[in-house]
Amino acid sequence: MTTLPMPNAREDAEALDRADPLADARDAFLLPEGITYLVGHSLGPATQKATARIETTAQEEWAQGLVGSWNTADWIHYPQALGDRIAPLIGAKAGEVAVCDSVSVNLFKLAAAILPLVRDKTLMVEDDEFPTDQYVAEGLAGLIGQPMQRVSRQGSLDALQSGGVLIKSVVSYRDGLIADMRAYEEAAAKAGGAIIWDLSHTVGMVPVALHEVGARFATGCTYKYLNGGPGAPSFLFVQMEAASLLSNPIPGWLGHKEPFVFSSRYEPAEGVQRFVAGTPGILSCAALSGALDVFEGRRVSDLHEKAGRLGDLCIARAQALGLDVRSPDDCRKRGGHVSLGHEAGYPIVRALAERGIQADFRTPDTIRFGFSPLFLRYVDVWDAMDALAEIVRDRLWDEPRFHVRAKVT
Amino acid sequence: MTTLPMPNAREDAEALDRADPLADARDAFLLPEGITYLVGHSLGPATQKATARIETTAQEEWAQGLVGSWNTADWIHYPQALGDRIAPLIGAKAGEVAVCDSVSVNLFKLAAAILPLVRDKTLMVEDDEFPTDQYVAEGLAGLIGQPMQRVSRQGSLDALQSGGVLIKSVVSYRDGLIADMRAYEEAAAKAGGAIIWDLSHTVGMVPVALHEVGARFATGCTYKYLNGGPGAPSFLFVQMEAASLLSNPIPGWLGHKEPFVFSSRYEPAEGVQRFVAGTPGILSCAALSGALDVFEGRRVSDLHEKAGRLGDLCIARAQALGLDVRSPDDCRKRGGHVSLGHEAGYPIVRALAERGIQADFRTPDTIRFGFSPLFLRYVDVWDAMDALAEIVRDRLWDEPRFHVRAKVT
Repeated sequence: MTTLPMPNAREDAEALDRADPLADARDAFLLPEGITYLVGHSLGPATQKATARIETTAQEEWAQGLVGSWNTADWIHYPQALGDRIAPLIGAKAGEVAVCDSVSVNLFKLAAAILPLVRDKTLMVEDDEFPTDQYVAEGLAGLIGQPMQRVSRQGSLDALQSGGVLIKSVVSYRDGLIADMRAYEEAAAKAGGAIIWDLSHTVGMVPVALHEVGARFATGCTYKYLNGGPGAPSFLFVQMEAASLLSNPIPGWLGHKEPFVFSSRYEPAEGVQRFVAGTPGILSCAALSGALDVFEGRRVSDLHEKAGRLGDLCIARAQALGLDVRSPDDCRKRGGHVSLGHEAGYPIVRALAERGIQADFRTPDTIRFGFSPLFLRYVDVWDAMDALAEIVRDRLWDEPRFHVRAKVT
Repeated sequence: MTTLPMPNAREDAEALDRADPLADARDAFLLPEGITYLVGHSLGPATQKATARIETTAQEEWAQGLVGSWNTADWIHYPQALGDRIAPLIGAKAGEVAVCDSVSVNLFKLAAAILPLVRDKTLMVEDDEFPTDQYVAEGLAGLIGQPMQRVSRQGSLDALQSGGVLIKSVVSYRDGLIADMRAYEEAAAKAGGAIIWDLSHTVGMVPVALHEVGARFATGCTYKYLNGGPGAPSFLFVQMEAASLLSNPIPGWLGHKEPFVFSSRYEPAEGVQRFVAGTPGILSCAALSGALDVFEGRRVSDLHEKAGRLGDLCIARAQALGLDVRSPDDCRKRGGHVSLGHEAGYPIVRALAERGIQADFRTPDTIRFGFSPLFLRYVDVWDAMDALAEIVRDRLWDEPRFHVRAKVT
């Protein structure tokens, strides 16, 4: 990573934008006027390709092509075709990634399939892990009568010595810390256990190399940095050699070796495809397909480098304001977002929104800024931090209107 | 059901169309020129409302509204809102139906949740049931170490005496026979067992009354007679009184009582909402939302009555050709499709397709004609049967080009 000077003035930020090799990507996005969107870590924005692909699928493939589009538009192969496009973004091989279901369902399927193969049948999850991951682990453990153990983030590496299964996010949704995947995989391999990596805050942002670090199982969502659209389907990675050992606990027709034989007997498809169950949501697949176009020809390491610089700028200015920075200082250890703690976090986020700057709030007191590098400019972050500085210094968050809670925050 | 004369000539069919109280519904659909679409039982066609809703969701809600649309466009309540619109079509109450996941996943969740509560922990499924239903039952039984039993369709009512759980389609995907739901529910109730009804070939076609017959659990897909779009999400019904007794084995954040508290501890939402797990595919929900508009103000019994007449016309003409009719003669006992057996089923379907008449083929020898009453006219069926008669009488299916297999049939 080359060292660039930290901007000290808006002009410096403008200069960085002029020199930005990713600057052209912004043109691919449909962004509303007057909005600085720092929530790409929650829901990525639409690209022109994504909305065009949706329209083609609705108007031509569905309305005109009807049921024949399963063949002619190759809908039937969306799970693999999309998986093959995500594979290079996470250091997986073609045929090792499938797109289907939600992260919740994929975590469940993977954990249920892996547990019979590990030394200790305990399902482990960190106690500050994304809640759904904790719920799913608890649900599965309860169903099959096996133990579920909550461990601390600090203690999870050691806990792997038991030989159990750990569900773990590569990038923490709270502070953005990137896990040392290799250390975890080594510990799991040594003990006869396994890790299911949740790549939801990772894919399209952090250059993970699943094969290189020995990872065998992962899932993640596609609606954050991949910009696949609201509720876009999840993906699922199983290392090729491991796939043949696993049984999908929710076997569906599309994971059958020969789905159109309509046999009463289930025979799993080769590789990760056996984890596909029901019919994929084609409109959502279409959106994701279009969304992935902007990643073609780009290296995830370049994306992470720019996101790191945008985050560094945010952190430097937040520190100057005396704010509580909860994310790692070192951008190499940080995913795409920066978390700041403030007791008035919620009204601050509302006050920013009134100025067209969208960030998000996570209870009880965390403001998160996401730095999607494909459409954000250095000046966007500079200006957002100007606004934050004004709101914080002048206690503008005191205004009662900023304290009204929305249903979803 | 009033008795209408069976058409004996094209003019008779035209007269029935002129008198058809559902004739106006056809205008809601986007149908390609020159196509007679008899595959609505597989993938319903697009309506103008569905494609318009998709476009609004993509261009306005996603591209302009961004993450805020979870609130402003009420994306967050799609599972319940869509469920409440499906409820009256199946004789359920508001709050008893949720839209989420696929049929495979919903069957799994329901069966896993119900098994602890029945007298006998055996999961039963008929041996000619839709394959996915069989696979899911086998997958779940294997996972939790409980027995799974395949029973014959003739024997399934008796098998309920064990007090186990039966997964059963109301309308058979093979021959279209409608099950006597009340008899099954009485047998299950008497023995302390339960039934999970698969309404995939039922919803929007057959006027089931879930409450009236004592049904407590059901799921189904929305891409057939509801025209929700390719891979549209599934729905799930749990009778209100039963819901509080059930635990979702795949608990996800959206089935939490307070999803935005992001608590480590799972507390289920009230009612069927607890069966929602991950983030719903919003684009697919939007399509379904638009698609449901055409059902507003219509009675399912009227739809079934017209579909019955269209099917009767098909059967009468097929019998006149000496074809093997595999569906019930009595349209009150038949769902929306008619199955004909013929050793040359596949090339016959291809020969029909060349004439713009789309039917489907199910291995090894079944031709299925679906009679979606909202867009099909009596003349469509008359003309399709004319074409079938010509193909069968003149053995036009012998042409080698009709024997080339498509990937998906």
